[in-house]
Amino acid sequence: MNQQNESGRHEPLDRMFNPKSIAIVGVSSGGFSFGRSILLSHLAIGYEGTLYPVNRRGGTVEGLTAYPSIEDIPGAIDFAIIAVPAPHVPAAVEACRQKGAVGAEILSAGFRETGTPEGRALEDEVRAIADRGIRVVGPNCFGIYCPKSGQTLLPGPNLSREPGGVAFLSQSGGHAVDFSLIGTWRGVRFSKVVSFGNGCDLRETEMLRYLTQDAETMVICMYIEGLADGPHFLSALKAAAMVKPVLVIKGGLSDSGGRAAASHTGSMGGQKRIWEAALRQSGAIMLESVEELADASLAFTLLPPRTYRGCSIVGGGGALGIAAADAAESLGLAIPPLRPDLAESVMELLPKPGSSAANPIDVANPFVPARTIKEILLRASEDDKIDLHILVFLIYHFKAQKDVMGVENLKDFVPSEEMADACREARELTNKPVVLVMPNYRQEEDALDLEKVVRETRRLFLEAGIPVYDDVRNALRAVASVSRYYRRRAARAEAVARVSKTPGQ
Amino acid sequence: MNQQNESGRHEPLDRMFNPKSIAIVGVSSGGFSFGRSILLSHLAIGYEGTLYPVNRRGGTVEGLTAYPSIEDIPGAIDFAIIAVPAPHVPAAVEACRQKGAVGAEILSAGFRETGTPEGRALEDEVRAIADRGIRVVGPNCFGIYCPKSGQTLLPGPNLSREPGGVAFLSQSGGHAVDFSLIGTWRGVRFSKVVSFGNGCDLRETEMLRYLTQDAETMVICMYIEGLADGPHFLSALKAAAMVKPVLVIKGGLSDSGGRAAASHTGSMGGQKRIWEAALRQSGAIMLESVEELADASLAFTLLPPRTYRGCSIVGGGGALGIAAADAAESLGLAIPPLRPDLAESVMELLPKPGSSAANPIDVANPFVPARTIKEILLRASEDDKIDLHILVFLIYHFKAQKDVMGVENLKDFVPSEEMADACREARELTNKPVVLVMPNYRQEEDALDLEKVVRETRRLFLEAGIPVYDDVRNALRAVASVSRYYRRRAARAEAVARVSKTPGQ
Repeated sequence: MNQQNESGRHEPLDRMFNPKSIAIVGVSSGGFSFGRSILLSHLAIGYEGTLYPVNRRGGTVEGLTAYPSIEDIPGAIDFAIIAVPAPHVPAAVEACRQKGAVGAEILSAGFRETGTPEGRALEDEVRAIADRGIRVVGPNCFGIYCPKSGQTLLPGPNLSREPGGVAFLSQSGGHAVDFSLIGTWRGVRFSKVVSFGNGCDLRETEMLRYLTQDAETMVICMYIEGLADGPHFLSALKAAAMVKPVLVIKGGLSDSGGRAAASHTGSMGGQKRIWEAALRQSGAIMLESVEELADASLAFTLLPPRTYRGCSIVGGGGALGIAAADAAESLGLAIPPLRPDLAESVMELLPKPGSSAANPIDVANPFVPARTIKEILLRASEDDKIDLHILVFLIYHFKAQKDVMGVENLKDFVPSEEMADACREARELTNKPVVLVMPNYRQEEDALDLEKVVRETRRLFLEAGIPVYDDVRNALRAVASVSRYYRRRAARAEAVARVSKTPGQ
Repeated sequence: MNQQNESGRHEPLDRMFNPKSIAIVGVSSGGFSFGRSILLSHLAIGYEGTLYPVNRRGGTVEGLTAYPSIEDIPGAIDFAIIAVPAPHVPAAVEACRQKGAVGAEILSAGFRETGTPEGRALEDEVRAIADRGIRVVGPNCFGIYCPKSGQTLLPGPNLSREPGGVAFLSQSGGHAVDFSLIGTWRGVRFSKVVSFGNGCDLRETEMLRYLTQDAETMVICMYIEGLADGPHFLSALKAAAMVKPVLVIKGGLSDSGGRAAASHTGSMGGQKRIWEAALRQSGAIMLESVEELADASLAFTLLPPRTYRGCSIVGGGGALGIAAADAAESLGLAIPPLRPDLAESVMELLPKPGSSAANPIDVANPFVPARTIKEILLRASEDDKIDLHILVFLIYHFKAQKDVMGVENLKDFVPSEEMADACREARELTNKPVVLVMPNYRQEEDALDLEKVVRETRRLFLEAGIPVYDDVRNALRAVASVSRYYRRRAARAEAVARVSKTPGQ
């Protein structure tokens, strides 16, 4: 049931992501309930439309009039959030449909995932109502997060309102919340996040097609446990990956994982190798965790869309450089030796002894000034073999050093702003992107001052358009994902061009 | 030049790790220098012996008399830390030898790692002096950290003074410092950490043999870039791994990593597959990063020494359980379905709907009380297929929930102590260990209150003897390392027993 029209727009989904009013059905007046929690989340995040809580006892909830039934709501509703016990869900969905809602998300569990005939029957009932003209997200999901409209997930009171280009379609509510939370401070900004749980109506394929056309979405992320229709999904995936990056986590690839997926969202898992081959052929990138999804999304958001091969590693010390080189090679990236004349010129800038300009560029100590770092980046950029720089900033060493130098305030001592400026300026002058790696190996209970500076520094670099990672392997993996995607896409575009030139085709 | 005597003791090394007095040669009176930094570090950590700073201008440094030369030091010296420029190092080592020091660590760089004839010649000179009767750590290293004596690394003012069973032999100073720093808050406690850099005298094989005999060392960790003598090392490794766990990171396995290792510590790398096979045959465990080393060391320290196969995953939500199951299988661990009667009995304890007792045990929400968690662990422990429990504690969800519930102080709201007690009690009653996974997906700048609670909670669990990880994959990898080590060791012991029983052998 694909309602996309010829212009590629899908009006019900457009309206679901930008509802002027939302009914929240099943809001307790106090204590913990999904309904109350999602209402509070919408109030906290600042949803700008009208909220209509529904509580069969009426009264007020959080200062809002609660209506005893959906029928009692005075205005029109675009969308509904349903959080009543499973047996009451079909009637609630039907009432929302009759009230004119274009869609609903069902947070309640107790459907197909239970494995019981009752659960399956309830879900079939909901699907039948959906087929009569209301689009359903869920059941057994955490709903929709859309920063632009202020819709948010369960529990998502603290998510960012700043919209961005990353979309996430997730069969798991936990992953949807976690990725949205991580994104908030990692600098990933979202267009639409949908936790669709059992996916009795709206599911992966239709929403993937929608996001492929969605001008607000630049990168599509997915977490899949099972597919409703493999061939259709793969063809949608292939089409999507030609237009924008698609990053996929497949959960339940092992025997026990597959078994767990069945009781989680009633999905059938699939074999690892089949999935890997299918995703590779479709041009999508396969990842393993939400952390990796955040890492990659950030790189896709902030790095110029192209392939990368040669990287410089600047800073961080000898062994870290070696670890980076080892990791890079296994990811299809290279840490090529710097052109001899440039190595010589970089060497002039480095403290001696204990440094090396070979690439990895070991700057010998963590306190090399930002202006020197900038100059190293500029000189190393002259090497055609270098496509991108990875700067390793061992910020935690400033904490011990501050004491040695008798400095009072850690923040005043760490040159975060100068470093971020240096990296931004080097990138602007050379058009070679810089990626920051900033581990924090000092997380003692009494080192929260360092943690504060780490977080401020992360923000400063993100504001300068520089992706930030806590580990060099994670940074390299993210860069490799970007590179792999654009390389495969170029190869596919070339193959298509070849075929279309062949006479008689 | 192995000076181990028949009782297995190695007197020079024993004395080097417990020096009654240390000369620090090359201490500037102000500003940043390696010498001043290591002196301040020893003062800060509270080294209990006598420190003799040497500065050719004399005077006082940090309230201590500085001696113009090593000869001028009034008392005897057991050990020396040398931080003068490379060309002055041989004379300093010779003076320390004549003064009666049993050993010295050379922090200075500018030796073989430079690739220059001058550097090599200087290093040869130092080695020749060592051969005349002083043991040398380095050059181009960060020295020794020994919590018992209060010796510390460069820069290591904030390392723990609490001794423990983990030793680390590291060709990299950066890795030595990082692992020591991480250990401090991750709960890894050290016997001896040695950054030996270029290793012109004391190196991997001899120190490995020493640690094999060392009663204070329970787990030996190593970071190796290159070996002085492959066959001797492998035989020492084999012998060590029969006695205690040996965990090895090999840096420089890639082409560019190998090249970087050459300029870092003048080492020749080696091929990945050869290393993997050699380490497997020797019974050591191969790891990839200091983070993994910390993960595994903690598990080796806190888990009973045996093989593990079946794990339960408790808490954390559906997708996290699926991810755990997928990861477990690839690591040789299993997440077996709970015995049906026990699953039924666990199900009685879980909030419904949205939960699952199949294993992963999805407890449906992050706020399930500690007493329920304890009871789940007790019931699941009755399953013979379960060797160990992994509890996933989504502590970050308490932050949003606190606001919903109108609670003022996050710390009062998170049942950290109750949870740690529940896990400890369950383990004590069943003898099945519990491992905690506590990710923090909310690291916004204004969420330091959460970070504080995370760190306090980590300490409480560690005090209860429960290893803590921030990611379920890391936890599983650490458990798998423990299991793999004891499985291999049992197989080797069995093979040895078979051979010795064969007549005529």
